[in-house]
Amino acid sequence: MGNLLILLTFIGAVLALVFALFTALKVLKFSEGTDLMKKISQSIRKGANAYLKRQYKVVAIFFIVMFVILGAMAFADLLTPFVPFAFITGGFFSALSGFVGMKIATASNARTANACREGLNRGLRVAFSAGSVMGFTVVGLGLLDISIWFFLLNNVFELNPTEITSAMLTFGMGASSMALFARVGGGVFTKAADVGADLVGKVEAGIPEDDPRNPAVIADNVGDNVGDVAGMGADLYESYVGSIISASALGVAAFSKNSAINDINAMAVPMLLAALGILCSIIGTFFVRTKENATQKNLLKSLSRGTNFSAIVIAIIAFPIVYFCLDGMNSIGLYFAIISGLVAGVLIGQATEYFTSDTYKPTKHLATKSETGSATIIIGGLGLGMLSTILPIIIVAVCILVAYYASGGGADANLGLYGIALAAVGMLSTLGITLATDAYGPVADNAGGIAEMAGLEPEVRQRTDALDSLGNTTAATGKGFAIGSAALTALALMASYINKVGEVAASSGKAIDLSFDITNPTVLVGLFIGACLPFVFAALTMESVGKAAQSIVVEVRRQFREITGLMEGKAEADYTSCVDLCTKASLKEMVLPTVVAVITPVVTGMILGYHGVVGMLAGATASGFLLAVFMSNSGGAWDNAKKYIESGVHGGKGSDNHKAAVVGDTVGDPFKDTAGPAINILIKLLSMVSIVFAAVVVNFSLL
Amino acid sequence: MGNLLILLTFIGAVLALVFALFTALKVLKFSEGTDLMKKISQSIRKGANAYLKRQYKVVAIFFIVMFVILGAMAFADLLTPFVPFAFITGGFFSALSGFVGMKIATASNARTANACREGLNRGLRVAFSAGSVMGFTVVGLGLLDISIWFFLLNNVFELNPTEITSAMLTFGMGASSMALFARVGGGVFTKAADVGADLVGKVEAGIPEDDPRNPAVIADNVGDNVGDVAGMGADLYESYVGSIISASALGVAAFSKNSAINDINAMAVPMLLAALGILCSIIGTFFVRTKENATQKNLLKSLSRGTNFSAIVIAIIAFPIVYFCLDGMNSIGLYFAIISGLVAGVLIGQATEYFTSDTYKPTKHLATKSETGSATIIIGGLGLGMLSTILPIIIVAVCILVAYYASGGGADANLGLYGIALAAVGMLSTLGITLATDAYGPVADNAGGIAEMAGLEPEVRQRTDALDSLGNTTAATGKGFAIGSAALTALALMASYINKVGEVAASSGKAIDLSFDITNPTVLVGLFIGACLPFVFAALTMESVGKAAQSIVVEVRRQFREITGLMEGKAEADYTSCVDLCTKASLKEMVLPTVVAVITPVVTGMILGYHGVVGMLAGATASGFLLAVFMSNSGGAWDNAKKYIESGVHGGKGSDNHKAAVVGDTVGDPFKDTAGPAINILIKLLSMVSIVFAAVVVNFSLL
Repeated sequence: MGNLLILLTFIGAVLALVFALFTALKVLKFSEGTDLMKKISQSIRKGANAYLKRQYKVVAIFFIVMFVILGAMAFADLLTPFVPFAFITGGFFSALSGFVGMKIATASNARTANACREGLNRGLRVAFSAGSVMGFTVVGLGLLDISIWFFLLNNVFELNPTEITSAMLTFGMGASSMALFARVGGGVFTKAADVGADLVGKVEAGIPEDDPRNPAVIADNVGDNVGDVAGMGADLYESYVGSIISASALGVAAFSKNSAINDINAMAVPMLLAALGILCSIIGTFFVRTKENATQKNLLKSLSRGTNFSAIVIAIIAFPIVYFCLDGMNSIGLYFAIISGLVAGVLIGQATEYFTSDTYKPTKHLATKSETGSATIIIGGLGLGMLSTILPIIIVAVCILVAYYASGGGADANLGLYGIALAAVGMLSTLGITLATDAYGPVADNAGGIAEMAGLEPEVRQRTDALDSLGNTTAATGKGFAIGSAALTALALMASYINKVGEVAASSGKAIDLSFDITNPTVLVGLFIGACLPFVFAALTMESVGKAAQSIVVEVRRQFREITGLMEGKAEADYTSCVDLCTKASLKEMVLPTVVAVITPVVTGMILGYHGVVGMLAGATASGFLLAVFMSNSGGAWDNAKKYIESGVHGGKGSDNHKAAVVGDTVGDPFKDTAGPAINILIKLLSMVSIVFAAVVVNFSLL
Repeated sequence: MGNLLILLTFIGAVLALVFALFTALKVLKFSEGTDLMKKISQSIRKGANAYLKRQYKVVAIFFIVMFVILGAMAFADLLTPFVPFAFITGGFFSALSGFVGMKIATASNARTANACREGLNRGLRVAFSAGSVMGFTVVGLGLLDISIWFFLLNNVFELNPTEITSAMLTFGMGASSMALFARVGGGVFTKAADVGADLVGKVEAGIPEDDPRNPAVIADNVGDNVGDVAGMGADLYESYVGSIISASALGVAAFSKNSAINDINAMAVPMLLAALGILCSIIGTFFVRTKENATQKNLLKSLSRGTNFSAIVIAIIAFPIVYFCLDGMNSIGLYFAIISGLVAGVLIGQATEYFTSDTYKPTKHLATKSETGSATIIIGGLGLGMLSTILPIIIVAVCILVAYYASGGGADANLGLYGIALAAVGMLSTLGITLATDAYGPVADNAGGIAEMAGLEPEVRQRTDALDSLGNTTAATGKGFAIGSAALTALALMASYINKVGEVAASSGKAIDLSFDITNPTVLVGLFIGACLPFVFAALTMESVGKAAQSIVVEVRRQFREITGLMEGKAEADYTSCVDLCTKASLKEMVLPTVVAVITPVVTGMILGYHGVVGMLAGATASGFLLAVFMSNSGGAWDNAKKYIESGVHGGKGSDNHKAAVVGDTVGDPFKDTAGPAINILIKLLSMVSIVFAAVVVNFSLL
């Protein structure tokens, strides 16, 4: 079984990577358009490349330090010797996912703009193909990493399933820390450039968005690629791998009491699901196409057709997998756990769309609040975001209960926890295509920028705008999806942590108490600390955006003042200085939040013990989920309310109402693109760090 | 012991009420000033009276319905027959606290303005005396209610201590629901009027704040009284009584295994502490006075002198009480629990002051963000509020751990929980004087409005402004204090709920499981639901403010348009129509949030069982605490950043920077004065409702 499993997982990984390569080559065949378009695209590419190179250098220092620390811990027998290496590979593949995504996105922006000259459908195909390259690279690299490690641990080092999953869990820490760096660094970069460009360009100088006279315009477009693409790639790589491994680990824990065959089968289910999900996603991509002159509704439908198809097929295929692997166990119940996750993912996406798309009441209603000024639209957007937490929380709550009890958690808690982890895998099984619909957004956004800067015909900009606007919706649903899966994965990781504590205690012979009563003051205090972390984290990242944006504002103002002829279009702006400033600022700003996220679980554990850690993880998951949904949805709704006004209602572009909506949108920027998404990673990184440092905490904590 | 205890508690109550009466008579001796001042004050009084009367009518319907439901439950043996009556008295005294506060505040506003004509110290004395009347009425009525019920249950019905505290706990539900109505209704009223008046008056028409030409100006001043005074009175009445009773109940639970004398002694400690706290607070009030030409720092010092004195004296007196009552037990440890609460209260106040006062870096730094517009000051304020949660959470965490372990929770969890409850009582023991410093703010605010409307000399307005500005700081620290004590009380109530479940199960012979493991899915899902509630609640209340403000905006615009000569000061505005609109809107809007707060714990319990309820309470306490601190501090910082700019920095009044800061302040209004404070009550009301419905949930829940 072990070898067959490795083979199938490996095949899934290769399939995804080959499809990505094939799609990439197809995209590259399209023309980049005029010389000016090529030049602009090249500047963006150069800026993004330069940023990522410097980011990896900074991150490398962190990885070296952590490698030494983990190595020392392994030397002191607090970790298995695989951990430091697993940590490094997790980080490497996560970074690679982001890097490939950025490469293809920056190669496709001008191509998308040029394709839009020929028609909307052609534009959609190019942008969506670019998104697909990114989506399938992420899932392909994820499964590749898993299958290689599984081969090494199972066939070369011949460990038993418990040891295998225990070691593999720790490479999630590498992936999570890399993802956090990428998300925070990229998120600060993109929003600092965006906010800075808007504040001086749009508001002060009164020039349109993406106007080539704005010195921050290239930085803004670079930001889309390093934040929304590279950051998101690293982020979802980490979710994907984390959910699969934690489900495998919980499967082993749940079935280890049975025969040896059974526990390796339980371990296999999530991996096979992921591999088959890739196949379904690939088929789904062929359903994405649209007519010319398509409305936004048509465009959305064509994307939904692809994702829905994939979801339905995987829902059908999942049953024989579960039935075959877990024959004789409660396989129907476990199947329902997977389905509950899949359905929950779709429902969260729809709930997010309802609250953030301007085709529904909440965002339309928000737009009317612009009539009494920026204060009321801000209050309205904050209220909307907070209220919008109710649906996702109920969906996730029902999903947890169904997954737990259907899997047989009522009789055996381990089975129930395995069910929750399978629900997370179910939700992420079609990540290949859902990520494609998500990643296509920034490409379309960039294409619009290039169309503007290259002075293409107005209908081209209209087409890229249609694609971009749809991208806002898919980005919002993608975010709902990312946070939903993050919450389930975090819960699975919390359960894995508790198992780890049990293992550590058993091997060190220490007496422990594995009940985590919420009235136990260490659990309770841990809960409070954990619940506070996402707030602090959001504050730090928003403050970072503010600081970085401030430096852009100063620089853009300086160029407008000092470069004569710039405003008249006679002289060229110094784009690189803004890219440079953003790079420096974001690299500086990404360090503190990440260090806080890594150190807090260790410090909490050293003071409050493992009971405090479990409380902290539960608190961070609950409050992080809420805060992330709140911030993403507020931001999405403000953005779309502004776009809705730009479509001509409530006074349209340039009116006072529009100005009020722009303020809302600007506040929403760091909400939805920096703080919100970073919280997803935070809650998983906390668990990953806790798992790695479990032995230290169990043996040396204060309380 | 029982009778002596009743006597001492009763004496404490009478002492407070007599002092309040004496102070009120002293205040009433001051002159109300000119005829115009009298007339304005009368309008405010009339509006506030009319509002409260109508509010009580609406609330009465709720109370009658609940009385019938509780009566039916008592009839079905799901409650003791005392509960419906306890519920009614709790509501009655809570309402009375608010009513008396409103009465004295509206009687003192013109008197304070007039006293300010003679000097700053005189103004401070009048305003602070009015605050004292309110403070001592709240604590006096609280202890009176407790001592009467104690007398009835102990001496007339001759129940045992467990039965006594169990019955008394339920009157908290009456107090909490009344408090929530008052806070939400009053909060919506005051902010709708404030926001509406500012948006049209200040921003559109460009007339100063409190200008008599603004039709919403009387409504704005009425709002200060019904929201900041009556709402706060009902709120803190409920905190005070809730903390005392839950501590008594946990004391009985902790000591019931010992001799009968011991458990009544444990029950006595919180009541005696409260009674002696009143004495200390009364003495403290005599230390509040200042020099003429005092700076804001001097003013703050003079108030701090009073509160610090009271805190130090109660810290000293607490020891003999604990030692005498709990002789032979771990009395020193329990004493430290009380002190930890007292110290935590002071520290939270200081942390709040640090984050919200313009004498410190965070608010000063926030003010600089106005230079890049309203978006950046909004982002900055949101970040500041989120970051500011870190100190209070650490303070509360340390307080919980110290209180729990010092009391002996390590050996006996019941003792530890009693310790946590005692910490809450310690924090609130000097409520008489801390509430006085808090309630004085709205009086000073009103006085400023009257000075403006009556056209008094500029130096009068300067003096009232100095008092008012200080009031913002004391309001912010008061809020920190209220939320800190709410969190501790909520935890104590959660423990009381678990005891209640045990009692109910024992009496109905049902098998139960009193472990609340955080990995149990019902606990976990309850935690998620609970954590979501404060977000939903904040959204509902903010939306209410938005809606109500919108109706004021329309009305004020109409008056400016239709009443000829209004802007020239030749015709009088129709003030009553705005007061009417606010009244109607706020009464309509206060119903939904309160009903949500009452129904959710019952529904959650019926579906998830008592495990889900405990999870919900923990989740709501953690996320509610964070959200309340975040919203209060963001709001306070924006308000003070605006005031700081008005003092002449960053361009001063009327500059673009000032306009940006006004937007921040407007967003902060519903944050700090509606949503934030209402969450305090929410988290306690949830526990109270859960306790009352415990028997229903234990016997009839689904899971």
